[in-house]
Amino acid sequence: MARIVMKFGGTSVADVERIRNVANRVKAEADRGHHLVVVVSAMSGVTNQLVDYAAAAASLYELREYDVVVSSGEQVTAGLLAIVLQDLGVSARSWMGWQIPIETTDAHGNARIERIDTNEIERRFGEGQVAVVAGFQGVSPLGRITTLGRGGSDTSAVALAAALRAERCDIFTDVDGVYTCDPRIVPKARKLAKITYEEMLEMASLGAKVLQTRSVEMAMKERVRVQVLSSFTDTPGTLVVDEDEIVEKAIVSGITYSRDEAKITLTSVPDRPGAAAGIFGPLADASINVDMIVQNVAADSKTTDLTFTVRKSELNRAVKVLEDQRGVLGYGELRADPNVVKVSVIGVGMRSHAGVAKSMFTTLAQKGINIQVISTSEIKISVLVAEEYTELAVRSLHAAYGLDKA
Amino acid sequence: MARIVMKFGGTSVADVERIRNVANRVKAEADRGHHLVVVVSAMSGVTNQLVDYAAAAASLYELREYDVVVSSGEQVTAGLLAIVLQDLGVSARSWMGWQIPIETTDAHGNARIERIDTNEIERRFGEGQVAVVAGFQGVSPLGRITTLGRGGSDTSAVALAAALRAERCDIFTDVDGVYTCDPRIVPKARKLAKITYEEMLEMASLGAKVLQTRSVEMAMKERVRVQVLSSFTDTPGTLVVDEDEIVEKAIVSGITYSRDEAKITLTSVPDRPGAAAGIFGPLADASINVDMIVQNVAADSKTTDLTFTVRKSELNRAVKVLEDQRGVLGYGELRADPNVVKVSVIGVGMRSHAGVAKSMFTTLAQKGINIQVISTSEIKISVLVAEEYTELAVRSLHAAYGLDKA
Repeated sequence: MARIVMKFGGTSVADVERIRNVANRVKAEADRGHHLVVVVSAMSGVTNQLVDYAAAAASLYELREYDVVVSSGEQVTAGLLAIVLQDLGVSARSWMGWQIPIETTDAHGNARIERIDTNEIERRFGEGQVAVVAGFQGVSPLGRITTLGRGGSDTSAVALAAALRAERCDIFTDVDGVYTCDPRIVPKARKLAKITYEEMLEMASLGAKVLQTRSVEMAMKERVRVQVLSSFTDTPGTLVVDEDEIVEKAIVSGITYSRDEAKITLTSVPDRPGAAAGIFGPLADASINVDMIVQNVAADSKTTDLTFTVRKSELNRAVKVLEDQRGVLGYGELRADPNVVKVSVIGVGMRSHAGVAKSMFTTLAQKGINIQVISTSEIKISVLVAEEYTELAVRSLHAAYGLDKA
Repeated sequence: MARIVMKFGGTSVADVERIRNVANRVKAEADRGHHLVVVVSAMSGVTNQLVDYAAAAASLYELREYDVVVSSGEQVTAGLLAIVLQDLGVSARSWMGWQIPIETTDAHGNARIERIDTNEIERRFGEGQVAVVAGFQGVSPLGRITTLGRGGSDTSAVALAAALRAERCDIFTDVDGVYTCDPRIVPKARKLAKITYEEMLEMASLGAKVLQTRSVEMAMKERVRVQVLSSFTDTPGTLVVDEDEIVEKAIVSGITYSRDEAKITLTSVPDRPGAAAGIFGPLADASINVDMIVQNVAADSKTTDLTFTVRKSELNRAVKVLEDQRGVLGYGELRADPNVVKVSVIGVGMRSHAGVAKSMFTTLAQKGINIQVISTSEIKISVLVAEEYTELAVRSLHAAYGLDKA
């Protein structure tokens, strides 16, 4: 008899038939005598519809009211799943964020969970009741409904698992685990049986959309054993665990790519103290997130070329900010390029193995792919290349690091 | 500077454009310096969709979970209206039933309001803030979400008006007031400038779907001045008020009809004490509501014929209950007839004027319409006639009582 948190995403609860499928999975675990918390997302498409309503209502809206609107989708799914579970003879009740309560900060639209009171849910475990929890939502110190950001139901699930000291947090989604690369472009991609928190965190940040980044951070901090698996099949998924639990460590565990990148180059930027602050300050003020940065000193040593990346959707805004500041910054030319992709290789094994970067650069060079920007961390290397090379780059690297299926 | 409650039904908030129209009306009242509570229904069609989800989830569902599902529609509208009001420069915030709180009984699906704490809303009136309240919903003593029955947003509005001692409760709907009869079948129907609570109550119970019956009961008890008007036009609506406020009282104020009736006749029922209880007891146990009842003593004085009406949707169930009890009840024949309509004339003037019933019976007789069952109260007379006579009966009565447009 264990405590287990099960989380079902939007495609897993897309209609009443799928909710019944979810209920059958929950019943199977309940029949094994486990104590269960089930976290649900909104039916797929519902949250987008609600976001569209808010956007149509006003171009700039108060996030407190946005949260009221968009949190309603999870409420519907939670009630429906409780109804279906009861219909299957499983004792169950729905819980909204404010009922538990899941206390959050008042950062509406992107609130952080501060505290979860699990007393009543634990008491009801003793009566054999399953708790069905509306994901994505909480309650602010002032008693307003908050939401946790897109994909926030993952964080709801991990936070509940941490608060309950659950044995496992199963994240059911429409893929059956975490792959060495996106199987849609690398048919030879393999499902990983295990992956470390650190690797999962890099993957989530670098474009693999399996888990919300913040949920992985929380799982790592609280040491919650997360399993990613499909609600449509019965195959085992991928366990996200501590590095110690992985006996045979691959040097590289996965390759990711992100097309949501755009490159900006400023030429002939005066090479003086404060130049970088002069450029990145106004961008930060405009809430534009800058990712990779590289600076080359020019031959005359008096100016530099500065290249960096922003999200593709923020490129036009970034260009406008920089053009407005041209007089102050005194750069030569501004070149913007949206046709780039960031390709990354990830693996905790990198820490103890030299040569990973060299393999990457050699492989890409052999295919004639020019590297525009490089950034590295302890367990990942990212390069920016022209977008047209996406498939070629990713497949070559997948093969080069021995990740192709046997 | 007055306190006003404004309530907008589903068709008035059917999409974001209409919500903007509603917001403009609210802004106009706010600009006059009034203190406003705005109660909203779900966007039209949404509640039906949610009810359908619940019905698809299980044939018999727990009403506590049903309430979680169906209350979400009003939450969305409240958030959206607050956003649009803020966009128009009006200070506003949304309130869910549990946030105010609107405390109700725990009779889920059909809860009654017990108490409303208006302190915080009144405090914010002082800051010029408009309260946008999700209608139809409240919170039970155990902190669960409750709903007030279909049309319950009317009751939310009237209850808030009573709690706030508001000067007026404006119910905005898709018709521009209360008519002497349904204009779809009586083109000569006139809009009433005023109507008494008692008449409105009879009209609501007898088929006019303008206001939820319970909201009228509450308005009458708490003496809330209710105005029914259209959100799509600027014409004055109908005031529902105390009898004293109406100077020129018509003898008959309106004619209603209800097609949701079915007739059951049991012949040769043994005429002995307890016979009626034997019949209506099992129907009540099956939650079947019996409306009109008439009993004729047969010539032999030892048996009677008993005729009564039930809702059309409950006819099959009622027949089954009675057939199951046939051995016990010992009646001769059971005749069921769904092709009937209940036509009623309503007016507080009836109390002081004789001859209203006679006019009704004479008018119907002149048109060759046979009356099957009669029931009366102090201010209304209802008759059951064959459904095919609906239009003829209603139009003839409308003319006979002098209600046709000048």
